[in-house]
Amino acid sequence: MPGLLLRNGRLWRTGAADVLVRDGVLVEIGRGLDPGDAEVLDLGGRLVLPGLVEAHCHLDKTLFGGPWRPHSAGPALADRIADERVRRAELGLPDPAHVTALLETMAVAGTTHVRTHTDVCTGTGLTGVEVVRDVAARLAGRITVEQVAFPQSGILTDPGTAGLLERAIGLGVTAVGGIDPAGLDRDPVRHLDVVFGLAARHGVRIDLHLHDPGSLGVFELELIIERTRATGLAGRVTVSHAYALAQADAATQDRLAAGLADAGITITTAAIFDFPVPPLKRLREAGVTVACGHDDIRDLWSPFGSGDLLERAMHLAYRSTFRRDEDIELALEAVTFGGARTLGLDGYGLVEGTSADLVVVDAETPAHAVVTRPPRDLVLKAGRVVHRGTVLRGRGSSRPRPPGTAAP
Amino acid sequence: MPGLLLRNGRLWRTGAADVLVRDGVLVEIGRGLDPGDAEVLDLGGRLVLPGLVEAHCHLDKTLFGGPWRPHSAGPALADRIADERVRRAELGLPDPAHVTALLETMAVAGTTHVRTHTDVCTGTGLTGVEVVRDVAARLAGRITVEQVAFPQSGILTDPGTAGLLERAIGLGVTAVGGIDPAGLDRDPVRHLDVVFGLAARHGVRIDLHLHDPGSLGVFELELIIERTRATGLAGRVTVSHAYALAQADAATQDRLAAGLADAGITITTAAIFDFPVPPLKRLREAGVTVACGHDDIRDLWSPFGSGDLLERAMHLAYRSTFRRDEDIELALEAVTFGGARTLGLDGYGLVEGTSADLVVVDAETPAHAVVTRPPRDLVLKAGRVVHRGTVLRGRGSSRPRPPGTAAP
Repeated sequence: MPGLLLRNGRLWRTGAADVLVRDGVLVEIGRGLDPGDAEVLDLGGRLVLPGLVEAHCHLDKTLFGGPWRPHSAGPALADRIADERVRRAELGLPDPAHVTALLETMAVAGTTHVRTHTDVCTGTGLTGVEVVRDVAARLAGRITVEQVAFPQSGILTDPGTAGLLERAIGLGVTAVGGIDPAGLDRDPVRHLDVVFGLAARHGVRIDLHLHDPGSLGVFELELIIERTRATGLAGRVTVSHAYALAQADAATQDRLAAGLADAGITITTAAIFDFPVPPLKRLREAGVTVACGHDDIRDLWSPFGSGDLLERAMHLAYRSTFRRDEDIELALEAVTFGGARTLGLDGYGLVEGTSADLVVVDAETPAHAVVTRPPRDLVLKAGRVVHRGTVLRGRGSSRPRPPGTAAP
Repeated sequence: MPGLLLRNGRLWRTGAADVLVRDGVLVEIGRGLDPGDAEVLDLGGRLVLPGLVEAHCHLDKTLFGGPWRPHSAGPALADRIADERVRRAELGLPDPAHVTALLETMAVAGTTHVRTHTDVCTGTGLTGVEVVRDVAARLAGRITVEQVAFPQSGILTDPGTAGLLERAIGLGVTAVGGIDPAGLDRDPVRHLDVVFGLAARHGVRIDLHLHDPGSLGVFELELIIERTRATGLAGRVTVSHAYALAQADAATQDRLAAGLADAGITITTAAIFDFPVPPLKRLREAGVTVACGHDDIRDLWSPFGSGDLLERAMHLAYRSTFRRDEDIELALEAVTFGGARTLGLDGYGLVEGTSADLVVVDAETPAHAVVTRPPRDLVLKAGRVVHRGTVLRGRGSSRPRPPGTAAP
């Protein structure tokens, strides 16, 4: 395959350069590179970001691409769980068509890697894991999907789930999940013992949902830190949501942040609705990696969500009350490098030798890209052109249009 | 001027109908209307909303349409005030070009009416009022702008401001503002006496910024309720932001909501950053009108803001953790009817005899429009076509594109 030379790019963090892509890799980055037989694309000074990394979503639940479905559950968590139990069968979920539509939308919006939490429970068994696996296999050249086996109904409260989680690993799932070890599963120590036991035994990663609030959630974070140290799983454990971390006082946040950094545990947030957002700046200053994802996208839990990670970064920056460019960039870091570290991606980045996963946008600074979420002018996944906007097809301008206006 | 017949619209709250527009008015709404000499546009079942009403912004401060300006202030409120004092001169604010760019963007995104708070203080005098007035006059056929004389630097702490507020009214300002009568101006009773005195004497409306938190803010809300009753200004007073209302316990919220409803005071929120959002549903249930606006848009206070009120409604619904269609519609109501009631607009609505201010979008339900913020296919302001999207020019489809993709 002939290569691709991207001329006059502006690489995030390193500045103006040409980028030569060959065999799926950024083989050379510099000024005035010789294209040889490579196709040449002039980026006209556009901003080049590494591929966006969706660190937390639920592909198996989505209704994306289908008709509008007004939210049908009552206000309480129990209402949503009951509603999902009834309606997912009625709506034929998980539906490969919806999963496909969402992944395709994510890909053209610049997402190159996805971690999705797939329901594993005695009610639905491993259906979701198989559906997502099959769709992901078909789209493998455009977007990479990693599944977490997610015990949505609990592990101890839904006996038989531990065995299903283990079987999910046999089906290619690379991480084991958990959910509110105390609040939902009623026994934090045994819940975590199952999760950490599976991870240690099978060499998979851990990504736990933790919505439990206040001092209960803080206690569970302490348990997770202790177990990560004891099992030698540093760098392979993520806590998603971690509302308790957002709610804690500053001294507790500092103590937990030091513990998380030391144990090599990352935090994944979604910044949805009015739910607490962990203190991104404080965590980064303490050396904790923070990733970001959409959580629910157009499903029975939430009618919101677009699949555009720049929009998600906007929500994270906004909820963090970030105004300065360097702060807003922390949100962009969460949907790129933070996600890559959480998923353990090899060869991720914008330096020579990394995989050619990148997104080109017309923005003056990285923060500007988060604020305006401009059209994606070019998306490469492992060197393959997944999306090429108007301007780079030489057919006009892709300058951001005023919001709410149709294309000319 | 020949009229315009919009065939096959789907009117919010009343359903499928044709709409006949003549002389700036919705003269007839019904099925199978006779166009006579009117131009006919087939809306193809698209959703018709009344013109969007921006109830709180700061046009005079905006840098919209100019280059990206990284936020330059430090983290504290005092930093932002000091930064603005230095930089607004350096950047030549208020700048008619930026005000024009923002209003034009608002107009094509479907906003037909704007209330803007213009700085009035001894430092800048009435410059802002004059600049905004002149730009608004030039755009009068496309968007209607109402100014609030806003004492950004206080009234008592910036002696001379009360006289300037009075002179602003002479320049056509139709509402007088206030700001944190206790927290900033240090004397809530005297501050409110000045504001209510000016309003009563000159027959203008009141729109007060109230960021003061907790019990201090609750006390000020009580003072405002008492003064509104005493001055007979029911239906002419708005409190913007009202963070204290969001922070109060449920019993206090109920008591204040009853008082606000009884006194005819509306609440305007912006749902920005992580700042408290007043309890929209509780307020509406108590009969309080709630409006919504952007607050700062791309200025020295915030780098965020797009001018698209459907996006703003999304933020309001999202921060209110609304999932059900009927709840999400409350946010849409805030950027339409709620704003209209707050601004005291005559002839606003989607019934026969109202002004032909409307927005057409391709959405299955009103909530769907808030979630996806689709392109505006048609915007009418007093019967004039302010924006017509591709699809209604018969040149293709304006179906919402996947996020982050350029137009074909």
